[in-house]
Amino acid sequence: MSSTLPATTLELRSLVKNTGELELSLQEVPLPQPAATEVVVRVEAAPMNPSDLGLLFGAADLRTAKASGSPSRPVVTAPIPEAMMKAMAGRMDESMPVGNEGAGVVVAAGASPAAQALMGKTVSMIGGAMYTQYRCLDVAGCMLLPEGTTAAEGASAFVNPLTALGMVETMRREGHKALVHTAAASNLGQMLNRICLQDGIGLVNIVRRQEQAEILRALGATHVCDASAPGFMQDLTEALAATGATLAFDAIGGGKLAGQILTCMEAAINRSATTYSRYGSSTHKQVYIYGGLDRGPTEFTRGFGMAWGMGGWLLFPFLQKIGAEGAGKLKARVAAEIKTTFASRYTKQVSLAGALGLAEIAVYSKHATGEKYLLVPNASSS
Amino acid sequence: MSSTLPATTLELRSLVKNTGELELSLQEVPLPQPAATEVVVRVEAAPMNPSDLGLLFGAADLRTAKASGSPSRPVVTAPIPEAMMKAMAGRMDESMPVGNEGAGVVVAAGASPAAQALMGKTVSMIGGAMYTQYRCLDVAGCMLLPEGTTAAEGASAFVNPLTALGMVETMRREGHKALVHTAAASNLGQMLNRICLQDGIGLVNIVRRQEQAEILRALGATHVCDASAPGFMQDLTEALAATGATLAFDAIGGGKLAGQILTCMEAAINRSATTYSRYGSSTHKQVYIYGGLDRGPTEFTRGFGMAWGMGGWLLFPFLQKIGAEGAGKLKARVAAEIKTTFASRYTKQVSLAGALGLAEIAVYSKHATGEKYLLVPNASSS
Repeated sequence: MSSTLPATTLELRSLVKNTGELELSLQEVPLPQPAATEVVVRVEAAPMNPSDLGLLFGAADLRTAKASGSPSRPVVTAPIPEAMMKAMAGRMDESMPVGNEGAGVVVAAGASPAAQALMGKTVSMIGGAMYTQYRCLDVAGCMLLPEGTTAAEGASAFVNPLTALGMVETMRREGHKALVHTAAASNLGQMLNRICLQDGIGLVNIVRRQEQAEILRALGATHVCDASAPGFMQDLTEALAATGATLAFDAIGGGKLAGQILTCMEAAINRSATTYSRYGSSTHKQVYIYGGLDRGPTEFTRGFGMAWGMGGWLLFPFLQKIGAEGAGKLKARVAAEIKTTFASRYTKQVSLAGALGLAEIAVYSKHATGEKYLLVPNASSS
Repeated sequence: MSSTLPATTLELRSLVKNTGELELSLQEVPLPQPAATEVVVRVEAAPMNPSDLGLLFGAADLRTAKASGSPSRPVVTAPIPEAMMKAMAGRMDESMPVGNEGAGVVVAAGASPAAQALMGKTVSMIGGAMYTQYRCLDVAGCMLLPEGTTAAEGASAFVNPLTALGMVETMRREGHKALVHTAAASNLGQMLNRICLQDGIGLVNIVRRQEQAEILRALGATHVCDASAPGFMQDLTEALAATGATLAFDAIGGGKLAGQILTCMEAAINRSATTYSRYGSSTHKQVYIYGGLDRGPTEFTRGFGMAWGMGGWLLFPFLQKIGAEGAGKLKARVAAEIKTTFASRYTKQVSLAGALGLAEIAVYSKHATGEKYLLVPNASSS
């Protein structure tokens, strides 16, 4: 075990107060000594994923966020609309650590061989509370990165890569032959595009702006449909007919898109129908909503027959469902292709204190394509 | 084989013309001689189910329906709104027979022992085209009714009974322990209530009017929630917490009800939550939409976590999924309890010509609770 292990670690915390206020701050918390199967990792890089931002900001209205505290211990407060407080009840007055995943160097290890084997190595981690300088966790939450991989390169080795692979795996297990993906120009979308090109899987990419369509086409995407274009429904139906896709993963959630996808799937299927069925085609059409870029209501007109489903999709229950062996195969592929298929791009690196700057929050809270931040917890505060 | 078999049968037909008009009429069509495994049934009674009315009226606007033809051969025409014509494309200019199910007496039988065994018996039938005087069909579509059962008693032996039993069977197969049902005062809803009381299954009945709530309470229903009452969401959450229901069957489809059910399910589950999860509870909550009493858009706010699903549910694909043995068990129970658990009630009997009276259409097309018609194809035209 390393003797240089600090007694405390500086950690980013998110607190919803029962007074209707969100408070973000940095807290010194004790750093435990690792148990036998645990390691302590100096966190070098952690991505700020949309799923992290949900926990970080809760339902707060960031337009009126205020800064206080000191440069090295900034505090951000923002009001939470009263209508949203009910949804926050479960986390009320509980200071919560943030950050699903990250990567860093193992600086201390417990007595077990599995822990000792990681000493000094660069690992990717999953398990929450990654927006901290040092993280003590079980080796089960670590993935050893191949020699020559930096922490920044391995920071996003779990959430996006396993989500993208999980979509393909879900497609196979549920008997579909091609995929639809929305918000398709995202880091995750680009990753899914690379997987599908590599594996020869039909992928229909739906984007919301022309520039995003161009990003994907430049990356070799075959089917790109721009939801803001006037001929969107026709374009989408063509792409669905060409690929035979009957499964979609939707990151947007709100609005009419999920229903439009089902409608176009049914239209594509019915092109080859020979007899009328008042109940629509018997081919099952499925949309999984895995994100909430649009938090507004989901709305659809049921003009796509009776063989349809819509539902939530979440990575960790999916991994549990496929079991340790199934998940292990996906993880092995991620490790092997971390610099190619599963490479992530970030616009900017920020320190812990930097992440609490109002100007930075205004940028990275928007979830905009190509505006993804990488948190570097051990950088000197700026 | 009977020698008195007529050469033709009078049949109700629904035709969507490419001119944007629905035409309902009675047509004389040839009555085939039964093949070896077929029987000819004199149809004595056939219910007018919501699913039949969908095929009968298509997307026509019945408010401006017009009558023509003669008293014994009435013709009804009604305009179809242009926006709905696309959905009618599959049945354009095709004269379609109507009537999912019915019952009657076998008056001719093919050479096979299975067909011969039914000669002279009263049977229930499934297979479409039941709004006719005589129906030739395979014995596989027949169910022998117990001695002493009338055709009127056996007319609704398939769609509602098997749908109600299918809901319970779906609940068991998908690992839920109690049910929610909307439009619960319907014939189907009353049947489901009887099954659940008999089998000791928790059932949350959702109705839209106070009178409907009273009908169900008088029938012994424990949990009845009136969606038109101000405390509906609270009442529903209480009933869901009391029963543990995480599966709903929704006959309405449009509007906010399906989403409200998921929201209340999540609230009921979270009452016993001990830690906060930003993704909501991990208990899967499911709503199957099996009808479309409200044809408008379905709208929901995703405030119920990520473990949810919504989708279409249809009887025949379900029966295929559970296979002949599974379906056989359900059918045997229906036959045994046709006069009790699976008894249906009708407001009125109409002849084939009577069913095409504008005043009758105005009543039975409304799908109102307690306004279900029984078609009696061999009654003298009135």
